[in-house]
Amino acid sequence: MQLKDIMNKTYSAWMDTSAPCTDVALSSRVRLARNLGNNPFPNHASPAVLAGVANQVENAVRQTPELSGLKVIHLSEVSAQDRQVLVEKHLISPQHAKNAENRLVILAADESVSVMVNEEDHIRIQTLLPGFQLNDAYKLADKTDDYFESRLDFAFDENIGYITACPTNVGTGLRVSIMVHLPALVITGQVKAVLSAVSKLGIAVRGIYGEGSEALGNMFQLSNQITLGHSEQELIENLASVTMQVIEQERSSRGKLIAEMREQLEDRVQRAYGLLNHARLVTSQEALKLISDVKLGAELKLIPEVNGKTINELMVIIQPAYVQYLAGRALSPTERDAGRARLIREKIRTGREGNEK
Amino acid sequence: MQLKDIMNKTYSAWMDTSAPCTDVALSSRVRLARNLGNNPFPNHASPAVLAGVANQVENAVRQTPELSGLKVIHLSEVSAQDRQVLVEKHLISPQHAKNAENRLVILAADESVSVMVNEEDHIRIQTLLPGFQLNDAYKLADKTDDYFESRLDFAFDENIGYITACPTNVGTGLRVSIMVHLPALVITGQVKAVLSAVSKLGIAVRGIYGEGSEALGNMFQLSNQITLGHSEQELIENLASVTMQVIEQERSSRGKLIAEMREQLEDRVQRAYGLLNHARLVTSQEALKLISDVKLGAELKLIPEVNGKTINELMVIIQPAYVQYLAGRALSPTERDAGRARLIREKIRTGREGNEK
Repeated sequence: MQLKDIMNKTYSAWMDTSAPCTDVALSSRVRLARNLGNNPFPNHASPAVLAGVANQVENAVRQTPELSGLKVIHLSEVSAQDRQVLVEKHLISPQHAKNAENRLVILAADESVSVMVNEEDHIRIQTLLPGFQLNDAYKLADKTDDYFESRLDFAFDENIGYITACPTNVGTGLRVSIMVHLPALVITGQVKAVLSAVSKLGIAVRGIYGEGSEALGNMFQLSNQITLGHSEQELIENLASVTMQVIEQERSSRGKLIAEMREQLEDRVQRAYGLLNHARLVTSQEALKLISDVKLGAELKLIPEVNGKTINELMVIIQPAYVQYLAGRALSPTERDAGRARLIREKIRTGREGNEK
Repeated sequence: MQLKDIMNKTYSAWMDTSAPCTDVALSSRVRLARNLGNNPFPNHASPAVLAGVANQVENAVRQTPELSGLKVIHLSEVSAQDRQVLVEKHLISPQHAKNAENRLVILAADESVSVMVNEEDHIRIQTLLPGFQLNDAYKLADKTDDYFESRLDFAFDENIGYITACPTNVGTGLRVSIMVHLPALVITGQVKAVLSAVSKLGIAVRGIYGEGSEALGNMFQLSNQITLGHSEQELIENLASVTMQVIEQERSSRGKLIAEMREQLEDRVQRAYGLLNHARLVTSQEALKLISDVKLGAELKLIPEVNGKTINELMVIIQPAYVQYLAGRALSPTERDAGRARLIREKIRTGREGNEK
């Protein structure tokens, strides 16, 4: 498996729409922050220390049969442009893409597991599964963590748990999050009230690209605020139960929209579908907005010929770096908008042809 | 031939795109105003006089073999709703639709000739041909006029010509007009300057529904301002030469747009095409705007699968009364927008299937 193979694939495991609650929940993500004892945190470490950490982790992967399916990638060997593709595929953080020297990412071929080495912590294990699967995402992360821990000496305190660079992660080192698509709550103007209630229950709400990012395309990331003082199971159960309520509220809003303004809704989603099928120049921001409408239409069977897998792929291929990656060269803004429009039309066409088979 | 047959047809002779200059000129129209001597003008005539005039004109049609192809319709026997359809098909004026009693319209099956009886004048002969055919439209009107004049005594003064209700029509009683589609001049912001120059050459500029109407869908009607003191041939030649210049300016603007911003143009016209193909609720105003873009796209071969005939039909079937006529009943505004959207999608589909044959 080459990095190129992962980058060329527009389909990732998290896009599978046979998972639970994919009508509202796009993907479930778990992150575990770990550090090697007796080493300063990456932000305070010398290049030599970083190189040493990277080396230790790489060796752990090579020496552990259960981790042998993972591909170790030295970010210093990946162009800045291609690192940006990894960000857009949600495999590394924007911060990790910036500092390439002595940084690794360790990837499963289906992108369900990605491990950042020397990001804010020495090791950040991330898992990403389709739909509402917080428990399974945690189990996968936990298992991966165990394999690493069998080879590496993690900084751990009996009283407070795992030691992390940022105090908010101390304890379990766990961040568990879920991406939800809430178009009906946005259309009916309820989203603010719902999300403000959610944030009072210890849940953080963010946009599609994490902290500080806007809720483009009506996509919201819900995640646990705190890690210290709670068990992993408590954190996951809390997020799961809040998310389930949000999912139910979105579903009920959709039902109401269909019952009370079906024609207006059909008009809206079909217009978006028409624009995606015909536009020749599309910005990523407009594309996300249109994709959100089409996704809603597909979920409500108002656009029967579009499947959820195609829509999930669209959300990734429209991103600026990915459009350029697939074009094989740097593009001017207008070329990018043109290339994006072409990719969208092709993807919808091949998705539709796939349906017809 | 029944009135119903004419109303049911969405295709009219003026929509033929094999005529000259249909890339810019939609249709050429000629109107001749005539009055019967010794009868007050319709606006000052008693019902008995109006009935007498209508009777004389109807008899003239029945007794003249060359006019036997025309259908005489008593507007009092046509519902207000259906009269509105005749307005939208450009067969009668809005004013003529209002006063139905003792009013006639006399129609050729292909809608190339329509004669209003007891509108502002006793007789208004109108001809409508596709594209840039001012001379042929005049010849057809002149011939029809001769047939009527062979049976009727028209008010005529050797010095000033035909006597008409409104002084601006005295003389030839001729109004000659041409409908032009000027999207490129509008997009490039040149239209104001061009049309202001035109109006200094004795040419009136109006919107698609005549006097006082807006230039919806970038359609402009150019017509002669005056009739007195010029021969028919002079009036026609003046309008023809000015129109030809406008057509050339529009063509040159289109060429420039294609050369300098092909992608933006293609994006614009394809988006309009996508919306027409997908929208579920469309107002007539939005429809005209979208049709204008699609028409431009079709002329520039940016939307090869749409033919000009389909576009011309669309311009008529989107009108409010016609949408209701085709639905067979009165519709609420939302039902009308939904019905219009459906008609548009069907017409585009059948037009495309016709192309593929």
